[in-house]
Amino acid sequence: MKPRIVVLGGGFGGVYTALALEKALASRDDYEIVLVSKENYFVFQPMLPEVISGTIGLTDVVSPLRRLLRRTEIHVREVESIDLQRQVVITSPGFKPHAHEIPYDHLVLALGTVTDFRGLPGLPEHAMPFKNLGDALALRSHLIRALAEAAIEDDDPELRRQLLTFAVAGGGFSGVEVVAELNDFVRSVAPSYHGIDPRDIRVILLHATERILPEVAPSLALFAQDILTKRGVEVRLQTRLQAATGTEAVLASGERIPTRTLVSTVPSSPHPLIDALALPKGRNGRLLTSGRLAVDGTQNVWAVGDCAQIALPDGSLAPPTAQHATRQASVVAHNIVAALRGGTTRTFEFKGLGKMGALGHHSAVAEILGAKVSGFLAWWLWRTIYLMKMPGWGRRLKIATSWTLDLFLPPDLVNLSLGSSQGVTREHFEPGQDVFREGDLGDRLYIILSGDVQITRRGAEGESTLARLGAGQCFGEMALVNMTRRNATVRCLSSLDLLSLPKKEFAVLAANLPDLRRSFERLAGERAQQPTASRA
Amino acid sequence: MKPRIVVLGGGFGGVYTALALEKALASRDDYEIVLVSKENYFVFQPMLPEVISGTIGLTDVVSPLRRLLRRTEIHVREVESIDLQRQVVITSPGFKPHAHEIPYDHLVLALGTVTDFRGLPGLPEHAMPFKNLGDALALRSHLIRALAEAAIEDDDPELRRQLLTFAVAGGGFSGVEVVAELNDFVRSVAPSYHGIDPRDIRVILLHATERILPEVAPSLALFAQDILTKRGVEVRLQTRLQAATGTEAVLASGERIPTRTLVSTVPSSPHPLIDALALPKGRNGRLLTSGRLAVDGTQNVWAVGDCAQIALPDGSLAPPTAQHATRQASVVAHNIVAALRGGTTRTFEFKGLGKMGALGHHSAVAEILGAKVSGFLAWWLWRTIYLMKMPGWGRRLKIATSWTLDLFLPPDLVNLSLGSSQGVTREHFEPGQDVFREGDLGDRLYIILSGDVQITRRGAEGESTLARLGAGQCFGEMALVNMTRRNATVRCLSSLDLLSLPKKEFAVLAANLPDLRRSFERLAGERAQQPTASRA
Repeated sequence: MKPRIVVLGGGFGGVYTALALEKALASRDDYEIVLVSKENYFVFQPMLPEVISGTIGLTDVVSPLRRLLRRTEIHVREVESIDLQRQVVITSPGFKPHAHEIPYDHLVLALGTVTDFRGLPGLPEHAMPFKNLGDALALRSHLIRALAEAAIEDDDPELRRQLLTFAVAGGGFSGVEVVAELNDFVRSVAPSYHGIDPRDIRVILLHATERILPEVAPSLALFAQDILTKRGVEVRLQTRLQAATGTEAVLASGERIPTRTLVSTVPSSPHPLIDALALPKGRNGRLLTSGRLAVDGTQNVWAVGDCAQIALPDGSLAPPTAQHATRQASVVAHNIVAALRGGTTRTFEFKGLGKMGALGHHSAVAEILGAKVSGFLAWWLWRTIYLMKMPGWGRRLKIATSWTLDLFLPPDLVNLSLGSSQGVTREHFEPGQDVFREGDLGDRLYIILSGDVQITRRGAEGESTLARLGAGQCFGEMALVNMTRRNATVRCLSSLDLLSLPKKEFAVLAANLPDLRRSFERLAGERAQQPTASRA
Repeated sequence: MKPRIVVLGGGFGGVYTALALEKALASRDDYEIVLVSKENYFVFQPMLPEVISGTIGLTDVVSPLRRLLRRTEIHVREVESIDLQRQVVITSPGFKPHAHEIPYDHLVLALGTVTDFRGLPGLPEHAMPFKNLGDALALRSHLIRALAEAAIEDDDPELRRQLLTFAVAGGGFSGVEVVAELNDFVRSVAPSYHGIDPRDIRVILLHATERILPEVAPSLALFAQDILTKRGVEVRLQTRLQAATGTEAVLASGERIPTRTLVSTVPSSPHPLIDALALPKGRNGRLLTSGRLAVDGTQNVWAVGDCAQIALPDGSLAPPTAQHATRQASVVAHNIVAALRGGTTRTFEFKGLGKMGALGHHSAVAEILGAKVSGFLAWWLWRTIYLMKMPGWGRRLKIATSWTLDLFLPPDLVNLSLGSSQGVTREHFEPGQDVFREGDLGDRLYIILSGDVQITRRGAEGESTLARLGAGQCFGEMALVNMTRRNATVRCLSSLDLLSLPKKEFAVLAANLPDLRRSFERLAGERAQQPTASRA
């Protein structure tokens, strides 16, 4: 058996490690390199926001792993678990319901972090993350749909206001780049929608501390803030997002911003797989990793990128950036080869070359080798440097072509409408909101997970309360059975979490699970006999 | 109120009708034009197969409706129903659970046909249609995933054979173009997959009659068949597809072709909305439509394209092609304007200019104004004519650029992995197949809709039968409760239809619907007490 090096993660850390290993292990017959990634492509993160406007072809911001890594065996799978004792990685099943085991001699952990909205009520259900290509495509689809709907929902000003308000939480590089691109996109395409008055569009950046872009010097952050403000973004500093519902962003001050689009770039947590490993952890659950990039206390487990806490020679910690991850990759590859073949090991040290952030429309900020640059020159540097860093000449050519065509073509408006999940979903509501109103179409059944609701109906003598329901109870089942309109309004009395079943899904289950059907028939019967009960 | 013309359908018929109306009704203040389409783009069908290989940018084969139709109000919605008495169209809800009504003065029906696999067991569950952009993207994703999995599933030759066999049913233009593009794509990218021997790849075209391309002269059909065969496609004539399962294409002869990829371009049915209208129908449920393009017996309901049966002056019927639909569009627009403003009406007559079909890799067949052309010249004509017919200069430029880059760049391998539906699905099996086997991961619960299964377990004395189950019964629940491996094999005794619930979905429901949980606990308890019963 040839020694096998298994790399987990398809981001900068993992892909550049595999690349460096391919170079170092010239002949592929001696060693096997395996990379496990849940997507079959590498996302070039710096250009991800350009997917929002479609400036670059939707697939050009990513590179197929198989084109980058010619001598690595690529497994497009989820990692289910890591067994350090037996030295195997277990991946999710493919077409066949069997777990797949990959034994390793050396293991490189480059799993990064995950978006984690836990602890912020409603964010897991209603906020959109912005981390991978799927997130970017989903945001783009959502924006186009929101504009199209705002253009035709002319009889409901409340809904229109929600649809035309776009909020981004988090004023770091990622949030600033997203809000700049989002703002440019919706404002440039809005004139194509006759029913929309461009003055009704609001784009808001929410940031918790007193200045955006904490990564760069204050003067650059102020420059960025000015540019955003001039282009119509409301920059709200010292404003913390606390919760979200399907129709509102709820701030710590209690203020509620009506919106159907809330992007949050803020929270990230350790990857659950890293969390589950019995290995020493540092801050934020990151793996304690030596300058050699071996995880403390191990001989053949290595870590690079955002999932590792790596002490630099000066005692500071390596920041979670792509330029650090790619340089860690070459060190870890060198040290693994040294472990396999003998030789001296290297220690990771790198000071960073600088930071750049795009602000849309021919503007950016950059700190390069200590110099501060802003405006058009920074934007030109941003494009040039990242274009050269994009792996693969084919991709570079395609991107350069797209950028050229973009100079004289309007932004693309195609909505790929990626099938949104139609199954059982969760929804969050805040006190005072209506889950549904009398007269709405009955398209879902709800089960209360936590919180209370009040069911009311309009009558000759005004609104009367029919019932109050709490955790574990259902409502909305009448409309499902009768395929009709809601005959009551359900209002939320407390912070409320619901499980929501679409009519179609429920109908299939009820038709084939007699126990389920009977229990809902019983419930409907009971409520029908109590005129004051919860018919909803 | 201004007179309103409502056009239903975003294909060639509908879009070109709206375009012709915009031209004819010079001032938009006099009339309102509304187009209802379920996507926000117009699909240029002739180029759809190019999405498979990604030669053209994934969104360039479609045109955003809002860029084409500057003076039309566009509703990106599903049509729920048409009320001819009240003269309103009811569309599906958008962000708000309210049906939307659009009153009309004139109604143009351009809804086309729908793919309809009913009557062919297993095809609705397991065959892939190829009609719209979503279908093309899904097929592309599936092909890339099948190759990636075949490359790493090295211990299961049966699964590998299924993954590397690609079948297309239907040898008309659509099926031939799809099989040609699919064959070019999988064979050109296969060398990037180390684990795949290119000789193991099989691409099969199934066609029911004795020659493919019935639309063109026999000599061109033979030419196409030769080209396909030379490139490695197995063309199987007089071969009818009868059924499908998740792992096989079942032929009328009883032969079963093991495959995980079955594309069917064959059946199309009238659109359910047309079906539901109380209007006179002709062959295949199409609307009986006069040469003026008014539906028989109506004054303000018009029909164009594939949903209309239009008699030509010579007594024959207009064929369902794009060139006919676009010319019908200009006649119907003229006649609607005549009805609104007065003036003479026109009658539709058009003989067709010819037919073209691409065969991949610089080859095509064409019949243009009576001349037969094949090979490179036909391919050049195909590209030139369709590029010029593509609406919008921006799109043409992007496509011409992509075609140029494609000359020296390898095919793109990015798998956008559009979220496949994770909810309740249906599965079809044929006698003798295993639904699952002892030792498989228990990831789903099954409910039998029709058919019978036998549950067996291996023991010291060989395989013993534990139980037989039929319609309405469940199996697979033990694995769900215990999160373990299957402890029995379930074999299909007859043609079998199942409802399949993923573990995750079921767990959420069971946790929150006590009646459902109890009924499964009872079932599991009963089965545990009967050693010969169905523990699966």
